[in-house]
This record gives sequence, C-alpha cells and structure tokens, in this order.
Amino acid sequence: MQSNEIMAPGSVWLVGAGPGDPDLLTRKAEKLIAAADIIFHDALVGPAILDLAAPGVEKVSVGKRSGRHSKSQGTINDLLLAAALEGRRVVRLKGGDPSIFGRSNEELDHLVAHGVSVRICPGITAASAAAASSLASLTLRGSARKLAFVTAHSRAGEAVDHDWKAFADGKSTLAIYMGRDAAAEISSSLIGAGLPGTTPVLIACDVSLPTEKLLRTRLNLLPLAVDAVSGKSPTLILIGEAVAARPSQDLGRSFYDYSHSALDRRVEHDLP
Amino acid sequence: MQSNEIMAPGSVWLVGAGPGDPDLLTRKAEKLIAAADIIFHDALVGPAILDLAAPGVEKVSVGKRSGRHSKSQGTINDLLLAAALEGRRVVRLKGGDPSIFGRSNEELDHLVAHGVSVRICPGITAASAAAASSLASLTLRGSARKLAFVTAHSRAGEAVDHDWKAFADGKSTLAIYMGRDAAAEISSSLIGAGLPGTTPVLIACDVSLPTEKLLRTRLNLLPLAVDAVSGKSPTLILIGEAVAARPSQDLGRSFYDYSHSALDRRVEHDLP
Repeated sequence: MQSNEIMAPGSVWLVGAGPGDPDLLTRKAEKLIAAADIIFHDALVGPAILDLAAPGVEKVSVGKRSGRHSKSQGTINDLLLAAALEGRRVVRLKGGDPSIFGRSNEELDHLVAHGVSVRICPGITAASAAAASSLASLTLRGSARKLAFVTAHSRAGEAVDHDWKAFADGKSTLAIYMGRDAAAEISSSLIGAGLPGTTPVLIACDVSLPTEKLLRTRLNLLPLAVDAVSGKSPTLILIGEAVAARPSQDLGRSFYDYSHSALDRRVEHDLP
Repeated sequence: MQSNEIMAPGSVWLVGAGPGDPDLLTRKAEKLIAAADIIFHDALVGPAILDLAAPGVEKVSVGKRSGRHSKSQGTINDLLLAAALEGRRVVRLKGGDPSIFGRSNEELDHLVAHGVSVRICPGITAASAAAASSLASLTLRGSARKLAFVTAHSRAGEAVDHDWKAFADGKSTLAIYMGRDAAAEISSSLIGAGLPGTTPVLIACDVSLPTEKLLRTRLNLLPLAVDAVSGKSPTLILIGEAVAARPSQDLGRSFYDYSHSALDRRVEHDLP
C-alpha cells in the first residue's frame, strides 16, 4: 500500500494512535499520517507520533485531556467537516483505538451525514499494551474467559452506574479506562458485589511511554495505590486473576511493600 | 528503535500479528520480525507477514487453526524454549493480540520458569479491526458503555457456560471470538437471557484480509447468517446496538435481504 493510494482528497481517516509509543502505531497509521494534509489530534498524542507527518503539515490539537479545557465534540466535528470540504486529506488521530471509548461514532455520524468519505484505522488499545508491558495475559484458559472494558469516567454529576455484579464472577478480567478518579467507588462496588479484596489489580499509567508506571496491588488497596502512583497520567486499571498469573510474581506482598522509587525497580526485576 | 537493539540472542518475543493485513502490524512487530532468527507462527499468519522476515530465517508453523491438526501447547512451549536455549532470537507470532485469547500465559510461564527472557509486543485484536472495517464503534457514549470479549470455543465436551445474563443488559457490546460453531447456542442463550431478537449483530470473517466478509444481521438470525457467510474462515461475532449505530445504515432490512454476492456490494455501498 502506498500512502498516496490510501487517502483521497476530501476524505477523513479516524486513526488509532495507540497508547503512546510511536512503535505501537500500525504500519497503516504511519502511512496515513505521512499522507495527511492536516492532522487533528487528541492532546495526548505526542510529538514523536506527530513528527511522522510530512514537513509543514498543519497539526491541530483538539484537546480531550482529562480535566483540561478542550474543544467540544461539536467543534471537533465541524473542524473535521470543514477540512474535508476544502478537499484536504484529513487524519483524525485518536489515542488508543478509535472504536474503544473514542467517541468515533459522533465524528463518523457528522461526516457521513454530510456526504464525506470516512474510514477507520484501528489502534492498539491501552489494555493490550498494559498486558504486554506487564507480561500478563488478559484472558486465561479456563479461569479468565471473559474480558470486559468499561469506562469509569462519568459525565458531570452522574454516578458510575455499572452493574458491578456482572464483573464479580471471579472468572473475568476487567479493564477500566479513565478510572483514576473513581478508584474508591470501583473498589468498594466490586467488593460489595462479591469480589474478594485480595483480587489482583494492575494499575498502568502512561502505558508504553518512557514514563510508564505499572503497579500491582489488590482490590482493597486500589484507592491508595492509585493515589500513590497515578498523578495526572492517563491511568488504566486491570482487575482479575489474569493480571497476576505469571509465576515469577509475588502475590503475597501488599502495595505497601513498594515505594514509588522501588516500583520501577521491581517491575524491572520482575521481568525475566 | 533499531531492530538489532530490541532483541537479544536467547530471548523470546510473543508478537501480535494482528488480524491479517500486514499493514495492521505495529511498527514494533515489523522490526521484531525483521530481527528474528527463527519465527514460530500460528497457521493463520499469512505469507505477506512472514515475508517481512530476513532472508533465510526459519519459519515454523505451529498450527492453532480451528479443526486442523496442530502441535500441542506443550510441544510449542518446548520448541520455543529449545530455540531460546540455542541462543536464537525467537519471535512467536500470534494472530491478533497475544493477551486476548492467545494462551500467551502458557508460553510465558514455561519460558520464565526456565529463566528465558520474554517480552510481549501487542497486536490489533479482531474486534478493533472489525469495527474499523464496518465503520462501527464498539462503545457508544451513554448507550454502550461496556465492551465484553468472550470466546465461545469450548474445550471438547464442555458447554459454553458463560453467564449470558451479564451481557443482556442492552448497554453492552459483546465480541465473541471463535463463535462460529456455537452461533445457535449464543443466539438462543442471549435471547433467553433477555436480549431482543432484533439486537444488531455484525458477523466478520477474515477481517482485514482481501477475503474479508462483513454481514449485518440481527440476533435471532445469527445462526442462519453464520452458516451463510462464514465457511471455514475465522469468524468474529459482534452483538449490540453499537454495531448498528451508523446513520447510513438500514436496520429495517433483515438478513434475508442479502445474498452472498450482494453482501460485498452492500458493504461497499454502505461506505460513504
């Protein structure tokens, strides 16, 4: 596939930028970025990825960083449409995979309704990258046969109203996106729904980036652990037996065994 | 990252090969494949991906194609270990993402137990690729806030014993891997658990490959639809309102409106 073959003028590609490491872009995403005339990107898409664009290509940050001012979805929709109607080759770079908590359908709907050609290029979602970084599997044959992705980022004033019992069967892995601020509620809800407080948890911040932090803890320590490690980094929380299944792993230690500075060393040492 | 920096002799990388399109490999996977001395791969990993290896590199198919004879997991574990102990740079190429129904933990455990250095490179999982191909989102803000991945490929003689009620809340997207042979059971179980028979379904075969087939149907027609479209191709089944959310889509038509040959045309026409 040549990059000049894959994107027509006036079309829009919603492209998954993956978790952050430019090497976790797909080859297709790399080609699309190189072929774009203009790139609209989430705030979290870093310079190492944006630098793959051709020289002089316009790059527009449209925000979407938790807790910061960013453009509204309606404004983003309009910007994409306007650029397409100008006949430009438009790439909309979204963190992770556009189809998983990426609100891609809102942009798709708007563009399709106006007759603009749209395509999607998938991306590595944070849960896959966090599993890879921590040498865990998200599923285990026999004991973790279900993997559920949820977001705990509620709209202002809304409770995080998942049916937590559905995740508390002890045979699931739960990947919680944007769960940092709801960690206490997640922990108490899942324990209330029947999951043991000792259920293994992996907290992953800045997955795949040089600043990546991985912390293994357990469900009843999740709120403390998130406070200790997460800062303002994008944070994924993985919960379930699968994230603790590696034999070199020491499940007996509690969160309190790790200081911040020991964390990275431990993860380093943990790797065989 | 230079490929010769990323893989030490005697180490093993479990690498996600993605859904099939070589352009849906990550850049990292491409570099690892190029740096490998020997590659062990699932039967479904195609020549266009294997050809990215250096000339003369040994490539060993270890099977894992549904219904065909393939090497046992124990044999695969032993082959990986032997190659690593010979000091080779070993790539284990797995379809999709190694951490999602890839049985990566069984290979990890074996290698780690023998002191071999192992790392994982994530891959695009079939659900992400199917959503991209069909211009769907797997999640919808407000109405599809949960995404569950399950496998319906049971061990011989076992029933597919998921708690289907957990998926029948009408606010979930369900991605069923290896669900072809259990389609009738899936359909009746979910309807029995309370999902409407009209719930939108997307059946995706050979996702991302030139032979890709995408079929939109509804839950009560799923068994017929799978029989009609799937053949022996790897088949992913997506279930939920999210897969039918695109405005250009006609939900009123039933499966019976599409013949085989009309299927590809419809998907083509559906794209804006």
